[in-house]
Amino acid sequence: MNQAPHLTFDLDKPGMSTGHLVVPQGADCKELSLPVFSLNKRKGPRLLVTGGNHGNELEGVLVARRLIEWLPEAQICGRVIVLPVLNPLAVEACSRNTPLDGLNLNRVFPGRADGSVTERIADAVSRLLLPMADTIFDLHSFGPPWDFPPATTTHPIADTDLMAKTMKMAEAFKLPMTLVWEYDDTAGMFDIVAQNQGKVFVCAEFGGGTVGAANLAIYEAGVRNALIALGLVEGKAEHPTFRQEKSGQILETNPSDELKSPARGIFEPRRSVLDEVKRGDLIGILHPIDSLSAASVDIRAPTRSTVCAIRSGAHVDAGEEVAMLARPLKVSGMECA
Amino acid sequence: MNQAPHLTFDLDKPGMSTGHLVVPQGADCKELSLPVFSLNKRKGPRLLVTGGNHGNELEGVLVARRLIEWLPEAQICGRVIVLPVLNPLAVEACSRNTPLDGLNLNRVFPGRADGSVTERIADAVSRLLLPMADTIFDLHSFGPPWDFPPATTTHPIADTDLMAKTMKMAEAFKLPMTLVWEYDDTAGMFDIVAQNQGKVFVCAEFGGGTVGAANLAIYEAGVRNALIALGLVEGKAEHPTFRQEKSGQILETNPSDELKSPARGIFEPRRSVLDEVKRGDLIGILHPIDSLSAASVDIRAPTRSTVCAIRSGAHVDAGEEVAMLARPLKVSGMECA
Repeated sequence: MNQAPHLTFDLDKPGMSTGHLVVPQGADCKELSLPVFSLNKRKGPRLLVTGGNHGNELEGVLVARRLIEWLPEAQICGRVIVLPVLNPLAVEACSRNTPLDGLNLNRVFPGRADGSVTERIADAVSRLLLPMADTIFDLHSFGPPWDFPPATTTHPIADTDLMAKTMKMAEAFKLPMTLVWEYDDTAGMFDIVAQNQGKVFVCAEFGGGTVGAANLAIYEAGVRNALIALGLVEGKAEHPTFRQEKSGQILETNPSDELKSPARGIFEPRRSVLDEVKRGDLIGILHPIDSLSAASVDIRAPTRSTVCAIRSGAHVDAGEEVAMLARPLKVSGMECA
Repeated sequence: MNQAPHLTFDLDKPGMSTGHLVVPQGADCKELSLPVFSLNKRKGPRLLVTGGNHGNELEGVLVARRLIEWLPEAQICGRVIVLPVLNPLAVEACSRNTPLDGLNLNRVFPGRADGSVTERIADAVSRLLLPMADTIFDLHSFGPPWDFPPATTTHPIADTDLMAKTMKMAEAFKLPMTLVWEYDDTAGMFDIVAQNQGKVFVCAEFGGGTVGAANLAIYEAGVRNALIALGLVEGKAEHPTFRQEKSGQILETNPSDELKSPARGIFEPRRSVLDEVKRGDLIGILHPIDSLSAASVDIRAPTRSTVCAIRSGAHVDAGEEVAMLARPLKVSGMECA
């Protein structure tokens, strides 16, 4: 008989408490206990902060743990729940998906109580934590082989009122980039489940490449800025700067902004993130490695744009994505300045 | 019957030529043809530049290819041979070692003619290219999960005259760090074989983490500086700067400077490369992920030092190396300023 997912403590208890979200055992895996932090100062915004959705994106886990350290001194109202590691099996394996069932947690929401372990995690979170929050910050990273500026992102939302609220929240992080990301593969995302319930969901995409001290400081400042904007903590928002003082750009991107490698070989990046490029500018070069006489192939910008993600130099296959471009946001009726 | 390793062209031919270094087939693998570039202007220094010794260190491959582009216009004397990819099997797999035999090319020099494919590559290079050069630049990177400044490195060399010449050459790159690296596991390194023949061998450790455009520009400038110092090309050396204008530090490190993780969990870096720290300063934090109440463990500097490498945030095992410290070089009779 399957146990139901449950919490080992009462989230309604006033003040600070910690305990576990218990994901029941299944045929594939024993029971999981995910550490949860709660600070309940009653009236005010209800926020859920999650990290470790993907196991190879650790900035969010680290920033969530920092938050737990200073929140008890800082929070003045409302309720904050922090779950630093959504998927401990993937984090321990440093892999995007859960090794046990091969599933991407961020594609199986709202999950299934009788599913495999990844689906059971999504089910437990959807049933027990999501109803406790009106705003969710899910702290991701762009993934190891990519360079990406500290950013908040959202997908376009049909409900224009919710979209405006979401953009306002995303901008409140004051990170170097705020990105509206039109994306095909959204079924089963945590975002969509939360947004369908009318909640404000901001996905922070924290860096990429190296999980380093400098970027972590920017991310932590971004989350603090967002808590200030919500009124959960007092203080003055900082505007964390990033290389060359570039910050605060609001951009949009869609699938046609992806640049693919034209052949098999080594991709050499020739631009950095947030570089502005015009049509024909060199973004990177593809070098076949089996011959010095086989010509290298230039990969150029198809249009005036901003580099919002660029792959680290790597041996890639033909058709593999190597860069992502973006343009200043222009959603009809929703220009954000 | 095994064919002998050979070149498909005559390296003594004046002017520019390209061809292949042929590594004979063996029981494990068919014949390999490694593209080679040669520019022979007769009298002057004889330099060999190699990249792709480790297949997940691609900066050197890319910088070697850039060198081939501008050298024909720039070289005024001497002989330069460039072999951008020493180990194509590892580069295609993006792995440090050769997938086929699991060997680390940089631990099997001088190789074996009747060995497995990695040993046959080392044998071909040792027999046919090494004798053609008095100076060798082997272009490495520090490896993907680490942050490391653009640097040249050498191991301590017993022959003080050769050590002085090697340090002079290493410094001529004018990269942010020049590092004397005392290291136990040196048997079979390309360095050692070359140095035992009295040659000047500089290992460039180019970055780590993300193979990005900004770092590549610094590396390329470093190699150009070294060619200017050798008198192979004309021009004025640049002093490539790196974050916070830190550059030109000459440091040494030994096995006791390695910091290991005290437990299993997520390592959070709290310092960046080239940060100066004093005894007791926080270098990073180890976070167990199975409990919020299990205390995080601080990892502190045991002595006044400079952070010369720091692991990217990652889930690590107990005893895994997470940072490497260094101190200003002080080799008896060999202080370099």
